[in-house]
Amino acid sequence: NNYFKIAVLPGDGIGPEVVNESVKILKVIGEVFHYNFQFMYGLMGAEAIYQTGDPLPESTLKICKDSDAVLFGAIGDPSFDDNPDAKVRPEQGLLKLRKELGLFANIRPLKTYSSLIEKSPLKKDIIEGTDIQIFRELVSGIYFGEKFTDEEGAYAYDVCKYSREDIVPIVHMAFQEAQKRKKKVTLIDKANVLDTSRLWRKICKEVAEEYPDVQLDFMFVDNAAMQLILNPKQFDVIVTENMFGDIISDEASVIGGSIGLLPSASIGNTNALFEPIHGSYPQAKGKGIANPIASILSTAMMLDHLQLEQAANKLRESVEYAIENKYVTVDLNADQPYSTSEVGGFIADYI
Amino acid sequence: NNYFKIAVLPGDGIGPEVVNESVKILKVIGEVFHYNFQFMYGLMGAEAIYQTGDPLPESTLKICKDSDAVLFGAIGDPSFDDNPDAKVRPEQGLLKLRKELGLFANIRPLKTYSSLIEKSPLKKDIIEGTDIQIFRELVSGIYFGEKFTDEEGAYAYDVCKYSREDIVPIVHMAFQEAQKRKKKVTLIDKANVLDTSRLWRKICKEVAEEYPDVQLDFMFVDNAAMQLILNPKQFDVIVTENMFGDIISDEASVIGGSIGLLPSASIGNTNALFEPIHGSYPQAKGKGIANPIASILSTAMMLDHLQLEQAANKLRESVEYAIENKYVTVDLNADQPYSTSEVGGFIADYI
Ligand SMILES: CC(C)[C@H](C(=O)O)[C@@H](O)C(=O)O
Ligand SMILES: CC(C)[C@H](C(=O)O)[C@@H](O)C(=O)O
Repeated sequence: NNYFKIAVLPGDGIGPEVVNESVKILKVIGEVFHYNFQFMYGLMGAEAIYQTGDPLPESTLKICKDSDAVLFGAIGDPSFDDNPDAKVRPEQGLLKLRKELGLFANIRPLKTYSSLIEKSPLKKDIIEGTDIQIFRELVSGIYFGEKFTDEEGAYAYDVCKYSREDIVPIVHMAFQEAQKRKKKVTLIDKANVLDTSRLWRKICKEVAEEYPDVQLDFMFVDNAAMQLILNPKQFDVIVTENMFGDIISDEASVIGGSIGLLPSASIGNTNALFEPIHGSYPQAKGKGIANPIASILSTAMMLDHLQLEQAANKLRESVEYAIENKYVTVDLNADQPYSTSEVGGFIADYI
Repeated sequence: NNYFKIAVLPGDGIGPEVVNESVKILKVIGEVFHYNFQFMYGLMGAEAIYQTGDPLPESTLKICKDSDAVLFGAIGDPSFDDNPDAKVRPEQGLLKLRKELGLFANIRPLKTYSSLIEKSPLKKDIIEGTDIQIFRELVSGIYFGEKFTDEEGAYAYDVCKYSREDIVPIVHMAFQEAQKRKKKVTLIDKANVLDTSRLWRKICKEVAEEYPDVQLDFMFVDNAAMQLILNPKQFDVIVTENMFGDIISDEASVIGGSIGLLPSASIGNTNALFEPIHGSYPQAKGKGIANPIASILSTAMMLDHLQLEQAANKLRESVEYAIENKYVTVDLNADQPYSTSEVGGFIADYI
């Protein structure tokens, strides 16, 4: 099979610019490796609200369900953030998409690049050699539990709920990944306070028995927030619930000094979505300065997922070549910056 | 009034050792400044479970309610952490104490010491000059909401609930503190997902109208976890809910390179508790290597609270003198370390 349907959701802020480069590169990969990628575009996020009133229009959802993979840009718009009363918000589109596609595992690899290590806010000896893979549960927990605000605004609540079925599959994924790596899984939780965390701990222990070659550690989320800065090299594979994963994976993303490079995959049983982790970065929108590499490396994760490893490896090689030769955007080289499309073009040419 | 009843709860791990130094110093302060401190000791935490079966015995609670201030060491024991089925846990004692005493605001000042700046995991230009005051809500939210686990372990939930009355007082405290500082309050929340966060945002905006000289900012908790590392100097006063405060304040505590120095105060309408933020650190228990300065600076916060500013300032001065002259424990000076009681003794002598 060399025919693939790719749903493309550019989204908000710098999303369209970076996704554009990924599509450009995928077209070249299609030619070079003789794959036939069919691109189906959909609206999503603030852009979709402005144009249709709905952050995830039915047509977009249909395209995604029908796809072999979803390539996603970013979501979010400051005009909604400052308005606590807005009933329709861009994020609802992303959350609904995750839920509808059953994307239960958000996977974020964190590697450091020796040529960029001096960009890290951390000292070199602390960060150098860090290599972490984070598995964040993505379709349950407090994000999707019951929510309520009374009419007078006197109180509100959010329910964090987890069932065994929500936890087991992602824990298996984490252990399987650890087997290919340094054979260590760390569960991040708050088991000294939360019932849901104690359920996670219990299930992790059970699953661990099926992977006797992998070591299982537990760490409280407050301590993890410290350890990521004090000694990030201690981690191999991290697995955690939705909200803790949101916080911890964003914290982890900046310690390497290269957030503009970090990709992510959100995987379900029948669908998968790939997006850069940097977000919509509205201040940079339309300026041609956004770094497209995180989106391009997300595209490489997508190629892996489609089992096109040869193309994925070629793409990663070309990204590394661009970085080594400083063919990068202003965030990585302020002295001689290239534009978003120049960087994408360079990588496409290399392929 | 120069008669004060101080409840002393040494707690677990290194708690007893560091609290011991604080009491030693308070006795000297009593003599020098002619205050009469009466110390009432209580059991709490894992120690209390071992001796009484209850992490917060009634007698301890009574002592605390009856006190002008509580001096607390640390809580937590690894033998409980690894056992998700334990019905009685040390942390329950601390949570119950907070609730019973109505300690709604946990206050953590974060300052950097120029003589210790090279201890920071962050680069000097990023961390130098950081001065943040964190206000964490301490008696509501997901810590105290309804919790449930079904008998088969098939699912569990934790409810995060906030009422207007839980939020208003701590927000006022944060704004009043900001007026004495750089006049900026940042609310950390997840208002793009949680109803409780949107309630926090709404109330913060209302309260802000009473403080027109103070600027109010909002930041999502995932972004805050990044910004604390990328640019900690942007923060002045932070206010946040219980769970986010737990994570963010611990993250903040390590960026200065001096977690062994950081104090905290937990304030209510009628009671107040003072504790170092470093925790029970069981590996160091009984070795005489624990840094007592965080507990001693918590004691200085206690003196402030009792409106004994002169003594508080003298105590802070003596701590700074000890740090400058490297009269410190092994965590701050590996070459020529002093023991816990030597450091406490040095500070007592200086006073
Ligand atoms: C936009 C927001 C709802 C989202 C989340 O919190 O999951 C984002 O922060 C992310 O991590 O993908
Ligand atoms: C011991 C634990 C329950 C506690 C908390 O999470 O509040 C601690 O981490 C703290 O921050 O004081």
